[in-house]
Amino acid sequence: MFQPARGTNDFLPQEMRKRNWVLDNFREVFETYGYEPLGTPAFESWDMLKIKSGEDAINQIYYFKDKSNRELGLRFEWTASLARVVASHRDLPMPFKRYAIGPVWRYERPSEKSRREFWQMDVDVVGVADPVADTEVLAVAVHSLERIGFERFLIRLNDRRLLEALVKVAELPKDRLLDIFRAIDKRDKIGDDEVKKELKKIGATNSSINNFLDLTSIKGEPRTILEESKRNLKNSSLGDAACYMLSSIIEYSANYGIDNYIEIDLGLARGLDYYTGPVFEVYAKDFREFGSIAGGGRYDELVQLFGGDPTPMTGISMGIERIVPLLEKKGKFKELEMGINVLVVSASKNLLHESIKVAQMLRQANILTEMDLLNRSLRKQLDIANSRGIKKVVIIGKKEMKKNCVIIRDMVNSTQKTVKLNCLINEISNVY
Amino acid sequence: MFQPARGTNDFLPQEMRKRNWVLDNFREVFETYGYEPLGTPAFESWDMLKIKSGEDAINQIYYFKDKSNRELGLRFEWTASLARVVASHRDLPMPFKRYAIGPVWRYERPSEKSRREFWQMDVDVVGVADPVADTEVLAVAVHSLERIGFERFLIRLNDRRLLEALVKVAELPKDRLLDIFRAIDKRDKIGDDEVKKELKKIGATNSSINNFLDLTSIKGEPRTILEESKRNLKNSSLGDAACYMLSSIIEYSANYGIDNYIEIDLGLARGLDYYTGPVFEVYAKDFREFGSIAGGGRYDELVQLFGGDPTPMTGISMGIERIVPLLEKKGKFKELEMGINVLVVSASKNLLHESIKVAQMLRQANILTEMDLLNRSLRKQLDIANSRGIKKVVIIGKKEMKKNCVIIRDMVNSTQKTVKLNCLINEISNVY
Repeated sequence: MFQPARGTNDFLPQEMRKRNWVLDNFREVFETYGYEPLGTPAFESWDMLKIKSGEDAINQIYYFKDKSNRELGLRFEWTASLARVVASHRDLPMPFKRYAIGPVWRYERPSEKSRREFWQMDVDVVGVADPVADTEVLAVAVHSLERIGFERFLIRLNDRRLLEALVKVAELPKDRLLDIFRAIDKRDKIGDDEVKKELKKIGATNSSINNFLDLTSIKGEPRTILEESKRNLKNSSLGDAACYMLSSIIEYSANYGIDNYIEIDLGLARGLDYYTGPVFEVYAKDFREFGSIAGGGRYDELVQLFGGDPTPMTGISMGIERIVPLLEKKGKFKELEMGINVLVVSASKNLLHESIKVAQMLRQANILTEMDLLNRSLRKQLDIANSRGIKKVVIIGKKEMKKNCVIIRDMVNSTQKTVKLNCLINEISNVY
Repeated sequence: MFQPARGTNDFLPQEMRKRNWVLDNFREVFETYGYEPLGTPAFESWDMLKIKSGEDAINQIYYFKDKSNRELGLRFEWTASLARVVASHRDLPMPFKRYAIGPVWRYERPSEKSRREFWQMDVDVVGVADPVADTEVLAVAVHSLERIGFERFLIRLNDRRLLEALVKVAELPKDRLLDIFRAIDKRDKIGDDEVKKELKKIGATNSSINNFLDLTSIKGEPRTILEESKRNLKNSSLGDAACYMLSSIIEYSANYGIDNYIEIDLGLARGLDYYTGPVFEVYAKDFREFGSIAGGGRYDELVQLFGGDPTPMTGISMGIERIVPLLEKKGKFKELEMGINVLVVSASKNLLHESIKVAQMLRQANILTEMDLLNRSLRKQLDIANSRGIKKVVIIGKKEMKKNCVIIRDMVNSTQKTVKLNCLINEISNVY
């Protein structure tokens, strides 16, 4: 028997309805903030995918050649395609606020958390250098997560330039910045000893390493940490710029209603290579141990790498594979009304044609209506209504049809009444 | 500058909104008929993709190996994945009615009509041998197309078994059925002479070929054509079964309200190899020359090919790449309200923070709200409102804010009034 390819999943209707419910809610919130959809293809030219990706990322890309030997790869996130579009459409009105929702593919070692196909929901702001844009994408993420039932959040916030300034203070080899960022980014996952090993490999001394690990352990209330950092940084212009930007984010965040969630965390680096300023991650406070459910940052140099004009950009990305299991734990999906409103059943076998007509009436009135295409017995059809949690059944009987009537049965109270066919829509609509 | 890979497209927001509008409407109709979403991965194992595909299809599949040398391919339609899921989940409640919406990929010679990435919207019924299922998927297609503004349709209907019976009557080589179906399927596109050449290649005589082309030219009012076919077929049990099934579809179609659209067309074959019974195509009557916008058929043997229990299946597939340009021609998108409801603008530069607060108020009330993250001049911001067709602008002024007021400006009538902040939501909601 054939299975889905390794690391990928089928989603049966019960799971898909949950996923679609999350995606629909997110899309609604994205549009409420003025973000617009952009569509880009699932595969891109290999040359283009390579350009912005660190070695880790390149190893994770599904690579293939088409039948003309063109080198291609499946998108492994949404940002590269966005930067390509911005670079090649110089007439896009700025700011360009776009969202993207869909699958991305990475050749990872499959685990419960790491799938080879997973859905990302991204919002990005193109053309705004001011950190009001970074704050807005954070607000969009929080608002989206609130919409689907999360209540309390932790936003970890840092700035790549601050981290770079700390590298200098600690006297780590400053030509190995990206290696250092990648090492520190994995600290929670692999532990201090492994991070130390990696930093030693790139030629750092023990005292530098310990100093750097101390400095990047600092986290907490934003204003306090920013004050402390300025002192530690001793007039680094890089550090000053970062602190100024982070302060602005804190100010804006009060207007966006998300200031209570923010913590400055000097150990936050994020895995991707292209960040140039603020980086951030959002956690559901009740599920801190499950890791971040949204993450992003500023990347002001990417469009230039793709041959476009210098263009500031910032964005955040959310993963549905992380979100659905947490909502499940919260019992959220128990409350969700899913599936269909009305089942049309026939009281005897020879009423299939009449059942179709009545079902079509309801469907034309946009009422979610099912009927039994297998034309099974009345008892079996009522069982189906019960097992699928359908609350209203419309019974088609020969006697009633002669009088242009049908029976509406309420499956919750087990009551029923006979109504004229031309009142059916009204009667049913009163309930929903 | 990088471009999308050959044969694929970027869709900027204006295009994407149209596509999403179509997809959303279709999904709503699918769910109104009780169809449920099923998610399957973008790539499948090569062995599985090969199993049901004719040679033409296999040549069109994007093939690649993952880093463990596993042979994979991008899905080139949705049906194989559905059959795989049905084969491996023997406990699925029947009938299983599923829809799928998303991209598929084919390595074709790119043209305006043939893209290498295109979106298909499929509905299929699993587990119903009776042609009520075929009729229902046709009704779903018509209802979906009506929902987005199409009004008159032509449904071409035939049955593969009827075609097979005609092959016998015409004494074409009956061991080359699929080649014959593929040749006749291309008749409209390549013309009679080319079809004749292809049929000669497989060893048919001139008189057989002419006879077959005559027989398959017959089309028209269903009951007439079915009577005529029965006479032509001279007691073929295959033909009788097909005619009986087609008659049933005609009967059911009256209840589904689509009988006026149906024409039996003995020349309809459809390109895919796996059909076993009725095949059908839907055309928008005003755009007959643009080709079919929906097509499908019955394929009762596919699940067995995938190692599952014998399971009847039928379904229909619609392509958004065909539909959006036709709607464009109909001027449909002019009526569509797209984009955002309210633009919050600041009367002076130092009111960004206040603007954010007001925008957030509106967004929390689910009102689609944009504000200028670039903090540009009032004049520039009003220009943006005009160019984006935004009808309401909320102006944040210093004087007004002191009194907890804002100005609502109606961009259509160029009128404005000052309202208390705590009445803003009400005032704005009255309009939408």
